[in-house]
Amino acid sequence: MTLEAIRYRAGSLQILNQLLLPHQTVYDDIRSVQDGYEAIKSMKVRGAPAIAIVGCLSLAVELRTGAGGDDPVTFIRESLCHLTSARPTAVNMGRAARELMEFAENESMEKNSEQLRESVIAWIEDMLERDVSDNKKIGNYGAQHILSGVPKDSVTILTHCNTGSLATAGYGTALGVVRSLHTLGRLKRLYCTETRPYNQGSRLTAYEAVAEGIPATLITDSMAALTMREMGITAVVVGADRVVANGDTANKVGTYQLAIAAKHHGIPFYVAAPSTSCDLSLESGRDIVIEVRPPEELTMINGVHIAAPGIDVWNPAFDVTPHQLITGGIITELGVFLPSELQAALTGRLTAL
Amino acid sequence: MTLEAIRYRAGSLQILNQLLLPHQTVYDDIRSVQDGYEAIKSMKVRGAPAIAIVGCLSLAVELRTGAGGDDPVTFIRESLCHLTSARPTAVNMGRAARELMEFAENESMEKNSEQLRESVIAWIEDMLERDVSDNKKIGNYGAQHILSGVPKDSVTILTHCNTGSLATAGYGTALGVVRSLHTLGRLKRLYCTETRPYNQGSRLTAYEAVAEGIPATLITDSMAALTMREMGITAVVVGADRVVANGDTANKVGTYQLAIAAKHHGIPFYVAAPSTSCDLSLESGRDIVIEVRPPEELTMINGVHIAAPGIDVWNPAFDVTPHQLITGGIITELGVFLPSELQAALTGRLTAL
Repeated sequence: MTLEAIRYRAGSLQILNQLLLPHQTVYDDIRSVQDGYEAIKSMKVRGAPAIAIVGCLSLAVELRTGAGGDDPVTFIRESLCHLTSARPTAVNMGRAARELMEFAENESMEKNSEQLRESVIAWIEDMLERDVSDNKKIGNYGAQHILSGVPKDSVTILTHCNTGSLATAGYGTALGVVRSLHTLGRLKRLYCTETRPYNQGSRLTAYEAVAEGIPATLITDSMAALTMREMGITAVVVGADRVVANGDTANKVGTYQLAIAAKHHGIPFYVAAPSTSCDLSLESGRDIVIEVRPPEELTMINGVHIAAPGIDVWNPAFDVTPHQLITGGIITELGVFLPSELQAALTGRLTAL
Repeated sequence: MTLEAIRYRAGSLQILNQLLLPHQTVYDDIRSVQDGYEAIKSMKVRGAPAIAIVGCLSLAVELRTGAGGDDPVTFIRESLCHLTSARPTAVNMGRAARELMEFAENESMEKNSEQLRESVIAWIEDMLERDVSDNKKIGNYGAQHILSGVPKDSVTILTHCNTGSLATAGYGTALGVVRSLHTLGRLKRLYCTETRPYNQGSRLTAYEAVAEGIPATLITDSMAALTMREMGITAVVVGADRVVANGDTANKVGTYQLAIAAKHHGIPFYVAAPSTSCDLSLESGRDIVIEVRPPEELTMINGVHIAAPGIDVWNPAFDVTPHQLITGGIITELGVFLPSELQAALTGRLTAL
C-alpha cells in the first residue's frame, strides 16, 4: 500500500486530513486558495514540501475556474502572498511563490489571461511531478551514503517528525531514505520519535510504517539518547523546513537536541531535503524566523486538557541545528554534501558524490 | 497553598490520586498493604521517596488492625517483599524494606507481637517526618550551591518530571531546591518539561507551580536543548530514583538526554536526592534494572488512541545518567557532593560543603 496524501486531477484537489489520522482516513476538498490557506494553517497538511505543493495546487484549482478574470497576475500575487503567510518557517512555499510569480510575470508579457492561467497551471502540475522524482533520488543517494559506511550489515535508523508520503507529494525525504533502505532489504529497524506536541511521529510516521510493513518502533522524544546508546543506531536522518547557506537547518523542534545526542554518541546525523528547501539567501540559521504556535498544542489533546490549568507555555514549532552537528551530510536530489559544500553544490560548482 | 499528597493519621492513610490530576483532586483510602501495592503499581502515587513512604504507611495501617496475629514478623516480611516488587527501579522502597526488616527482627527478640507492631509503626511514622526535614535541607543546600555561582542575579532553572510535594512526603527534592530559590526571592523562572509518556511535568509539576505561585513555563521534552540555548538556563536540577556508588543516576527517562544537552551548553547539571535514594551496594549504573512499562502509556491518553494502531513501542521508564555528566553535583540532605565524593560523604568520611 502506498499512501496518497494529495489527490490531484485537473481542476480537482483533495488532501488527506492529517488532523484525523490515525483514527479516520478522510479526504477534504480544496476548492480555492482560501481552502488551501486554511488547510496549511490548521495543519491538515504539513511538511515543508507538501505545504508548498498544496498551496500552489489550490491556486491552480482556482485558476481553472477563471479566477483573476482579466488580471490574473494580481490575483496570483495576492494568493501567493496569502499562502506564504500561513506558516512562515518552511522555505518551500516562499520559494515556490517567488519562482512562480517571476514565471507568471514573464508569461504575462506575451500571453492573454486565459493562456497565462494555463501556463501557470502547467508550471504547478510540473512541480508536483518533480517533487516525487526528487524524493526518490534523495532516498537513493541517502541509502547509498549510509550503507557505504557499513558494507555488509543491515542498518538501524532513528528519525523525527514525519517526512514521508504525508509530508511531500509522495515517497518522502528522510522517510524516503528509510523506504529506499527497506526496499534494498538493508533496513533492520526504524525508531521514530512521537514528536510532541503534535505527534507527527506517533500519528503519521508510525501510520506510514505500519501501512507499508517497515519494521518500526515508536519511542518518546526523551528516549532518543537512550535509544542511541542501547539500540545500535547506525544513523539519525531527519528532514528540513529550511537549510541556509552555511548548512544550518531549521526543522521540527527537537531536531537540535537529537543532533547533540547523536554527536555525543558518535552517530552520523543527516538532513534530507530537496534543493527547494535550501535558502542560500540567508547566511546562517540566526536569520531564520521561528514560528511560535498556540499553547493549546501542549495543554490539550483531542479536546481534553492534559496540563495543569493556568500554566504558562512556550511552544516554538521549530529549532535550528547548527551545521557543525550535521556530521553525516545533507542529502539532496543532487547528492549528499557536507554543510560546507552545500552552496557550491547547489550553484553547480560541485558535482554529486 | 501547600499540597498534601499523603494524609496520614494513626490508623488512617489517604493519598492524592495523581492519575486524576490536574482535573480532579480525589483522595483514595489506603487500608491495607494490598491497597498500597496497587496504588504504587498503578502510579496513583509515584516518585521514589513517596513510593517508599506510602508503601510503609500502608503496612503501618494494616498492622494497627492487628495484622500478622501472633507472627507479625512473617507478615511484615511478606508485605515488604510484595511492596518492593511493585516498581523495581526506585531504591527507596527496597532500602526501607531492608532496614525495617532488620529493625523488626531485632525488636522481635525482646517484644511480644503487640509491642512489636507498635515499634514498627513508630519507625514508619518517623520515616515520614524525616523525609520532609531531609527535603528542606536538600532545598537549602541546593539553592545555596546554585546561587554561589551567581552572587547577585536571579536564576532560571530547568527541571524534568515531578519531584515536588507530590513525589515525596512534602516539599520535594529537585523541586524543593526550586521552592527554596523562590522563597529566597532569587528564582526568575522555572522551565518544566512535560515528561512523556506520563506527563508528570505538565500534570504535576505545573500543578504545584501554579498552586504556589512559582513562575513557571511548560515546554515539551524536545524543547529542552533549545530552551538551554535561548532562555539563559542557570542550572538543570532533576531528582533520582537511584544513585549508585560511582554517582551514576537512574531517573525518569529523558534525564540522560537532558544531561547531554546541559553538557553541550556548559550548564551545570544537578541531581537532588536524599541519601535514602543512594545505593552504595551497586558499583555503577550498568547494574541498575530498568523497568519497561506497557506500550499503552505512549499510544493512548485518557483512554483515546493517539498513535497509529499496530506500531511497536519501546517504553523504558527510566534511564541512567553517567556520573561524568552530573557536572553541578549531587544534592543530598548532608550537602552537595561531586559524584566522586559521594561514597565518602555517605559513609561519614567527608563533611558537607
